[in-house]
Amino acid sequence: MNQNRPIRVALLGAGSVGSQVARILLENADELAARVGAPLLLTGIAVRNVDAKRDVDLPKELFTDDAERLILGSDIVIELMGGIDPAKGLISLALSTGADVVTANKALIAAHGPELFDQARRVGAQLTYEAAVAGAIPIIRPLRDSLAGDRVERILGIVNGTTNFILDRMHTRGDSLEEALRIATDLGYAEADPTADIGGYDAQQKAAILASIAFHTEVPVELVHREGITEITIEQIERAKAAGFVVKLLAICERVTTSDGVEGISARVYPALVDTQHPLASVHGGNNAVFVQAQAAGDLMFYGAGAGGVETASAVLGDLVSSARRRVNGGPGLGESTHADLPVLEVGEITTRYQIILEVHDRPGVLAEIAKVFSDFGVSVSTLEQRSTGSADGAATPGHADGGSEGGATLVIGTHAATERALSALAEALAAHEASRRVTGVLRVEGAL
Amino acid sequence: MNQNRPIRVALLGAGSVGSQVARILLENADELAARVGAPLLLTGIAVRNVDAKRDVDLPKELFTDDAERLILGSDIVIELMGGIDPAKGLISLALSTGADVVTANKALIAAHGPELFDQARRVGAQLTYEAAVAGAIPIIRPLRDSLAGDRVERILGIVNGTTNFILDRMHTRGDSLEEALRIATDLGYAEADPTADIGGYDAQQKAAILASIAFHTEVPVELVHREGITEITIEQIERAKAAGFVVKLLAICERVTTSDGVEGISARVYPALVDTQHPLASVHGGNNAVFVQAQAAGDLMFYGAGAGGVETASAVLGDLVSSARRRVNGGPGLGESTHADLPVLEVGEITTRYQIILEVHDRPGVLAEIAKVFSDFGVSVSTLEQRSTGSADGAATPGHADGGSEGGATLVIGTHAATERALSALAEALAAHEASRRVTGVLRVEGAL
Repeated sequence: MNQNRPIRVALLGAGSVGSQVARILLENADELAARVGAPLLLTGIAVRNVDAKRDVDLPKELFTDDAERLILGSDIVIELMGGIDPAKGLISLALSTGADVVTANKALIAAHGPELFDQARRVGAQLTYEAAVAGAIPIIRPLRDSLAGDRVERILGIVNGTTNFILDRMHTRGDSLEEALRIATDLGYAEADPTADIGGYDAQQKAAILASIAFHTEVPVELVHREGITEITIEQIERAKAAGFVVKLLAICERVTTSDGVEGISARVYPALVDTQHPLASVHGGNNAVFVQAQAAGDLMFYGAGAGGVETASAVLGDLVSSARRRVNGGPGLGESTHADLPVLEVGEITTRYQIILEVHDRPGVLAEIAKVFSDFGVSVSTLEQRSTGSADGAATPGHADGGSEGGATLVIGTHAATERALSALAEALAAHEASRRVTGVLRVEGAL
Repeated sequence: MNQNRPIRVALLGAGSVGSQVARILLENADELAARVGAPLLLTGIAVRNVDAKRDVDLPKELFTDDAERLILGSDIVIELMGGIDPAKGLISLALSTGADVVTANKALIAAHGPELFDQARRVGAQLTYEAAVAGAIPIIRPLRDSLAGDRVERILGIVNGTTNFILDRMHTRGDSLEEALRIATDLGYAEADPTADIGGYDAQQKAAILASIAFHTEVPVELVHREGITEITIEQIERAKAAGFVVKLLAICERVTTSDGVEGISARVYPALVDTQHPLASVHGGNNAVFVQAQAAGDLMFYGAGAGGVETASAVLGDLVSSARRRVNGGPGLGESTHADLPVLEVGEITTRYQIILEVHDRPGVLAEIAKVFSDFGVSVSTLEQRSTGSADGAATPGHADGGSEGGATLVIGTHAATERALSALAEALAAHEASRRVTGVLRVEGAL
């Protein structure tokens, strides 16, 4: 059926994604050959230890510990080792031979993407990485190709399944952060060391990648503002719920014009309040979703599994088949575009809204004092809710702040839009104010409907 | 900045989508040139009447009534006239000169796609049509490229915004079908002649296109089973709501193995009950969404605006930029793939579930008689709810069917999965049975969670 010579495919790494990619390549060989127009020949799988136990039963003779030798003579190299070294050197070696490369390595693309894209462009090879962001969900290709004639204004992404699982458990079951994390670990959603997920580092890399593509601009990962979910309390979740919000860890990429008229972009990651009516609010469990606002297209959302070996393998194979088809047809790669080269703004420059939960001394005049702090920082109050918290068990009861001298009151204050700089300075001033006992929660509100 | 010669773009049609495409091409010329690597030069806009009033103010000198002359000498032709003639001949003319073609013409792609794709393949040109299905939502490219290495099992799509708007109004506001249609017409969601939308013809064309791509098989539009929403009553909507369902007009494409072991595909359009917890249930107003189940990727959903001039223009421009980039880079088109060539099965072969609402005579033994009809057709009952409807105003009150001789009872019967053939025969037999007064509703249940 296929007159064309086989496309030689080398696989680097045989973890949860790599072993599924190998399995599907072998099991669906005929179907894939028909789609490509030539057989896809898996020439080998490079691993550190060829005798290690694998999730999937694969032919032993495919394994090798000599990645460099495997790469030489390959048409397409699939890199699923993760991490910077030796992945970067091996990808560079593959590109130097003119091979196309498919990778799921978000850390590498976020840190060294531009250098590798340049190398690929020079040799006319393709470097694709659909699996690096939001697992199985097609998002890189839609942003780069389908929206190529549009102007992306904003992306709000739930791009880390572990933290979404944890926050969803806290919201729907009332688990504490610690309980939810333990369950996530037991179920395999969280790594033994969960820092990359709950610290927001994983989402930070993905935000850098999404912003780069959406805005045609190099976005170094260290310019992406990052806050994790480690400080989120069940009290915050419950207050959010009562107010019609859900807390989500968001990767936010947007075009921004500062008050000084500077046009730039912002990429940032933090937990934020999202209205329960927003499409992102109904993304449950370990799922991911990317909400895109474009000038012409309006609001789009891409939803699906954000992780998992076989799910991520789907994205890897999509890139592989596309590269292989172009090899058969003789076309060059498309390359990345960073022509816009917009400045990446500090988080202080961006405009957002805060919800601040503040425990204050319950004595006459306290509301006026707090209101003056807001006014001093030029921030307008949008909503204000007040409760007495004088009772020993801390249960909220209806009360008044300008009342007795014992106990305290809790103020839940929503602000109008203001710069992050003004809002964070305000929050600090409130914490230091002698009328306040404790700032129990500061969260931004995103995804206005 | 751009050393490359301009890409010559001809536009056929200046309706709501065409005028927006022209506007964006002119207004965003610099940005688009940077993305493509060469200027996109709009050489003209072919229309029937060059003096007609347009939605958008465009330079008068661009307009011509000589489409053929405009096409000759173009690199890329954008066809936004709609309909079969003269669109088909003009696209064929453009392809014969080696020009790439971008179209939003679902009727043409559904009816004559294979012939035009063949022609494009022979000359190495590209024929792209992202805008033909689900407006601004990137769905064609994700299905064709991102999921190219996966195996799509099922697609459930809300692909017609007009009917979704109408059904959503009925569900959320209690409007009758007539009221909701009138509002849709007033708001510009529905055409003066709404037959194509409410009759399901528009969704039928889109189902044929989606099934062709997902299953690598030619799917003639006339093999897509079609039912519209014209028979849907507010009573059915309200019963659905009470039972935890919402009624959606679905385009369904799935791989099917019949009881005889025949592997094939089914493409069909009908209003169906969808569980309110299903992601498709929360697609409101005129929006579209396509829910895809793939073997490796699992469940994905693509959501956004399904229609609208500027939104659809976004999809057209995405195709245009992709084609233009490949022209600059020198690559050939990707072509369509129909290698799988699976049989398209009759709707009778597929397996589904029914919800049947039946008014019966309220007399002893009636339940046993009805139960026997189910058993005769080999269909198992999953749920059964019964209400007396003896009162004059028809209000449902708790009651019993095996009771008095006056009045009637309403049975709401949910079936287990069975073939469409058995289920439709069963529904006919129930309607004809002497114990039944009226079958007030038969709807399929789709999207099991």
